[in-house]
Amino acid sequence: MSLVVMKFGGTSVGDAERMRSVADYVARTVKRGNQVVVAVSAMGKETDELLHLASQVSSTRPGREMDMLITAGERKAMALLCMALHDIGVPSDSFTGSQAGIVTDTEHTKAKIVEVRPERIRKALAEGKVAVVGGAQGVSTDKEVTFLGRGGTDTTAVALAQALGADSCEIYTDVSGVFTADPRVVPEARRLKRLSFDEMLEMCAAGCPKPAMRSVEFARNHGVRLHVRSAFTWEPGTWIEEETSDMEQAIVSAVTSDSSEAKVTVAGVPDHPGVAARLFRALAERSINVDMIEQNVSLAGTTDISFTVPREDLDTACATAEELQDEIEARQVIADKAIATVSIIGAGMKTHPGISATMFETLAAEGINIEMISTSSIRLTCVVRSEVVDQAVAALHRAFELESERTAC
Amino acid sequence: MSLVVMKFGGTSVGDAERMRSVADYVARTVKRGNQVVVAVSAMGKETDELLHLASQVSSTRPGREMDMLITAGERKAMALLCMALHDIGVPSDSFTGSQAGIVTDTEHTKAKIVEVRPERIRKALAEGKVAVVGGAQGVSTDKEVTFLGRGGTDTTAVALAQALGADSCEIYTDVSGVFTADPRVVPEARRLKRLSFDEMLEMCAAGCPKPAMRSVEFARNHGVRLHVRSAFTWEPGTWIEEETSDMEQAIVSAVTSDSSEAKVTVAGVPDHPGVAARLFRALAERSINVDMIEQNVSLAGTTDISFTVPREDLDTACATAEELQDEIEARQVIADKAIATVSIIGAGMKTHPGISATMFETLAAEGINIEMISTSSIRLTCVVRSEVVDQAVAALHRAFELESERTAC
Repeated sequence: MSLVVMKFGGTSVGDAERMRSVADYVARTVKRGNQVVVAVSAMGKETDELLHLASQVSSTRPGREMDMLITAGERKAMALLCMALHDIGVPSDSFTGSQAGIVTDTEHTKAKIVEVRPERIRKALAEGKVAVVGGAQGVSTDKEVTFLGRGGTDTTAVALAQALGADSCEIYTDVSGVFTADPRVVPEARRLKRLSFDEMLEMCAAGCPKPAMRSVEFARNHGVRLHVRSAFTWEPGTWIEEETSDMEQAIVSAVTSDSSEAKVTVAGVPDHPGVAARLFRALAERSINVDMIEQNVSLAGTTDISFTVPREDLDTACATAEELQDEIEARQVIADKAIATVSIIGAGMKTHPGISATMFETLAAEGINIEMISTSSIRLTCVVRSEVVDQAVAALHRAFELESERTAC
Repeated sequence: MSLVVMKFGGTSVGDAERMRSVADYVARTVKRGNQVVVAVSAMGKETDELLHLASQVSSTRPGREMDMLITAGERKAMALLCMALHDIGVPSDSFTGSQAGIVTDTEHTKAKIVEVRPERIRKALAEGKVAVVGGAQGVSTDKEVTFLGRGGTDTTAVALAQALGADSCEIYTDVSGVFTADPRVVPEARRLKRLSFDEMLEMCAAGCPKPAMRSVEFARNHGVRLHVRSAFTWEPGTWIEEETSDMEQAIVSAVTSDSSEAKVTVAGVPDHPGVAARLFRALAERSINVDMIEQNVSLAGTTDISFTVPREDLDTACATAEELQDEIEARQVIADKAIATVSIIGAGMKTHPGISATMFETLAAEGINIEMISTSSIRLTCVVRSEVVDQAVAALHRAFELESERTAC
């Protein structure tokens, strides 16, 4: 008998028919002799609708009330899923985050889990029941309802899998796994059978939309194997797990792109110590999440500092830089929305030199200019014009032969 | 400084604009130096929508999950109202039934309040905050979320008013008070300034839709004065309170009608002891709520038993009677959907003979046949054909001169 934690996202339970389809699948899993815990998101676009309702009523949107409002979506979904399970003869109980023992800090709208005490879940399982838990929610150390943030249901699932010592944690979603590239951009993109936590994290950071990055970090830190798979076709998907020596080692596993960032260039700054520190401290104080940073020294003794930020933070970032313009003696602050990043990710890159050269050559052969470069041990990211990013992804996917099982370089 | 408990129904908080309008009114009440506790229903038709969703997903609809589902509606409403209050500078916190200390029995979908421990509400009030409580919900003695049933937000408000020793309990709704008759039927209908609990209860039982009967019973039993009034015009409405000797005593206070029942006649039953007992025991065992009962002995030594039931129970009631037909030797079971009741209600009826004669004469003068009669000390109800019920209401309203302040007979 295995204990399986299953996570179903909003699209997977988007309407009554989908609810019943998920219930049917859970029932089959139970019938095969497994214990099942389900973490479920709000139905369809309900979270967006609740956020819209809040913005119609209030411009202040206090965190405590936002969390009470938003978690109502998951409560509905979990109750409905339990009803659907009852209907087909599967005993089940629903549990709020609080009832499931998910204790968080007091940071409303983006609470972090501090402890999981799943006594009621264990009891339900011992009674032969399926436990359905409302995703992305918990109870804070001062007894308030908290929301874990967007994508928090993945975290709920992973945290429960860890606390319960589950045999696997299955992330059911509207895609059938993690791909070598976005199949809409690269028709030859291939579903990956396995991926290491580190690769998945780099992919999340570089624009791959599923699963939520925080849940992968949590899974890696606690050694919880994830299986990302489809709630529509139910076929096996992609396993995300600890990198092992016997793992078939791809040099490059995937190509991702991200068009959600913008670039700021602070041009003509005197090449003094402390200038960058002053600038990035000011940005940090405004909670702006700076991603890539590049600094070039020109011959004239001045330097250009470029950095990328989430597009929605661009105006604040530019205003911050402009406020400092006189102090740091910058010549100009330039905002650029028309950029995108393209990344290659692979655990094998660590031990294979020459990958970066192949990437740069490939882009050059396409006539694509590289504006910024950033690297980690298993990722290489280039900033390019946003209009050529799909072309860059397709070219790199071909260059690294990702359409076939083994990657060559 | 007064402590006011305000109840707002679904129509009163039906959309974002209405939310803000209610918040504005609460803010004005606070500004005048009052402490305010709000009990709020789910927005608009949300409870109906949740019920529909449940019926799409499940035919069993287990009570525990139904309560979890339905109470999500009030959670949304309370959080949104708090946000709207914050926006206009009124400190406030929202509370679920559980957080508000509303402890119920374990009867899901129609739980009864067993205790109110409003410590967190008292604390919020002491901190100068408005407490917004999700209506119609509580936590059961075995720690499950419970729903108090339709109209339960009225009960929440009354229970909180009693537990907190509030100075008044205001039931804000989409009508401006309780009327001498339905103003759609009788244009001369007059809003009543005061009404005794007993009169209000009889009116609820005889078809007056607001407030919920259970909350009036609770209010009467605990001596909580109610003020039924409009959340749209905000004008003073109708006070419902203990009958006092100095209360201006109307003989007849109001005329109501009810078209939600149907009549069953079990005809030609031998006039033996125990026949009625057998029939009504069988109906009770199927949880059919029988309202009026009438039995006539005919000259032939057989009797006709007629009774009324809610229209949705008519089929079950007839089937039950037909199953017994042979055993009780009944000649025939006749179902009749085309009936309605018309009632006159007034605390003064107790001490004024001749009211019934006036009622019967009035109906006779209109050519309206009376099919059944039922009485209490302060109510007189006649069953008539449904197509003439509005005519009956209008005629009785005129006959008892309800359009003017004092009622004569």
